[in-house]
Amino acid sequence: MVNEYTFGVDIGGTAVKLGLFDDKSNLLDHWQIPTRLEDQGSVILPDVHTAIEGMLDINHLEWANVKGIGLAVPGPVTGDGFVPAAVNLGWKNLNVKKEMQRLTCISNICVENDAKAAALGEYWKGGWGDFRSAVMITIGTAIGGAVLLDGKVLRGAFGAAGELSHIQVNPAETVPCACGKCGHLQQYVSTDAILNSVKQRLSALDQPSSLRGIAGITMKDVFDAAKAGDGIALESVEEMARLLARAMAMVSCVVDPELFIIGGGVSNAGEILLDLLRTEFKKSALTMCENARIEAAKTGSDAGIYGSAAQLIYGIE
Amino acid sequence: MVNEYTFGVDIGGTAVKLGLFDDKSNLLDHWQIPTRLEDQGSVILPDVHTAIEGMLDINHLEWANVKGIGLAVPGPVTGDGFVPAAVNLGWKNLNVKKEMQRLTCISNICVENDAKAAALGEYWKGGWGDFRSAVMITIGTAIGGAVLLDGKVLRGAFGAAGELSHIQVNPAETVPCACGKCGHLQQYVSTDAILNSVKQRLSALDQPSSLRGIAGITMKDVFDAAKAGDGIALESVEEMARLLARAMAMVSCVVDPELFIIGGGVSNAGEILLDLLRTEFKKSALTMCENARIEAAKTGSDAGIYGSAAQLIYGIE
Repeated sequence: MVNEYTFGVDIGGTAVKLGLFDDKSNLLDHWQIPTRLEDQGSVILPDVHTAIEGMLDINHLEWANVKGIGLAVPGPVTGDGFVPAAVNLGWKNLNVKKEMQRLTCISNICVENDAKAAALGEYWKGGWGDFRSAVMITIGTAIGGAVLLDGKVLRGAFGAAGELSHIQVNPAETVPCACGKCGHLQQYVSTDAILNSVKQRLSALDQPSSLRGIAGITMKDVFDAAKAGDGIALESVEEMARLLARAMAMVSCVVDPELFIIGGGVSNAGEILLDLLRTEFKKSALTMCENARIEAAKTGSDAGIYGSAAQLIYGIE
Repeated sequence: MVNEYTFGVDIGGTAVKLGLFDDKSNLLDHWQIPTRLEDQGSVILPDVHTAIEGMLDINHLEWANVKGIGLAVPGPVTGDGFVPAAVNLGWKNLNVKKEMQRLTCISNICVENDAKAAALGEYWKGGWGDFRSAVMITIGTAIGGAVLLDGKVLRGAFGAAGELSHIQVNPAETVPCACGKCGHLQQYVSTDAILNSVKQRLSALDQPSSLRGIAGITMKDVFDAAKAGDGIALESVEEMARLLARAMAMVSCVVDPELFIIGGGVSNAGEILLDLLRTEFKKSALTMCENARIEAAKTGSDAGIYGSAAQLIYGIE
């Protein structure tokens, strides 16, 4: 029983999710604690340490039983566990690996970007392991991306591989993206961007829409209305699919994946978004790669805890 | 001396280049024969066989001394040596590996796409081996591309990885690319496209230009005029650099290479193109990857024969 338990920790801007795995990669227990952002996020890792200790106690385990800890963080990870900036947490130039080693006395610590961790978790836990190459695109308030080749996540020379949110899909755009440059995918395909485009259509157009009666329109409202044939909802979803497919076609020209996995909140939209994406992708992509599979993510919010511990529980390099 | 010589064969639409290598990857001899296109290119591989036999004779070698043959072909290679179409040669559904095995009785045959072979040749022979990731872009009458990760060329699920010529840089374009879809890099950055843009500027604008006196303007003329400060030449080269840098910025969001290598005829343009590309890339790329190196290819027309035999002479998988 010694030294065979692994923790996967997914640190988000609101909550930290923790999972305890046995050596067969079974999730034995999972917890969630709030992310405390005070003092430039300096209490987050001590809180993680305390939470792990609590989980060990409850499961009658000790630190000596811990094989390793994987951490997913909302920011780029350059070098070995070094996070130059995680804006949502207040972190700057923090070596998360060293800090966690110091707190826990566990040497086997892996640190991964959260989008890449979610992609690894989805790839391994979602049963996509037969695909040699896959690209995951997570659509939420921001867009996350990851390129998986032979089951490993591609990092890139400067930690920017898979930063698909910044693919330029509209060179004519003059409004800047959060990164400062213009016309990027994220400006059109995040949940905020789609809700804004719906609101703009509702105020600019006279046509009737079931969305007009709703006070705080959600993505679910938009997809439900689109499924029911609502013109304004459908136009917004179609525009989203067209621009996302345009970016996916460019991704195919570079890495030509066998599979695209669409994750995040919008993956619950069901077949309407996937069908539109498949149609638009065939229009945009090179003929030779137009048969790439486009599927919705299967794992839910646990993808991050699986993926953060992926190196430890699946033995990938 | 038995079984230690390798041939690299680069099959182009006009000429076939052949190189004989020893087991230390030294190029001992190189030949060139015309590509005979009659009968749907059916005599090309027999001609290659005859040429290899000639090179063996002259170098006092026999077939028993041949370790393997690498072939680079101008078309996609899917599966193991299978070429669905090489339009310039007239080939359709040809298993080049099997055919060459049948002709030569050598079992160790590697078949590679020519742009990917040139990239491998440049990477290994050009001394870029310290870079873990590189993207090569070859600009000629068409654009070739290749993504190299850990010194290996990325193929993709459908053979389309590195097809950078079809990255969409202008979604507003209505004129189709050769592939049938619109606004692709190749429509603006091939040598033909640049010469056309120069001609259009010369006829549409009144401004004086040293290019006006030249009958058949070449790329060398354009670059020479741009270096001398000629406005029309400079605008054309700047537009080329801007669109190429835009595509390179997208490539960085996907694979984030450490190095871009610019090859083909335009790599002789020297620092003017590279400097413009570096400036434009910094404008387009994500801040985190704006320091990717951008360099001109070092190997000349021999890159293809080195690269076609790369698997055999450099022992890469």
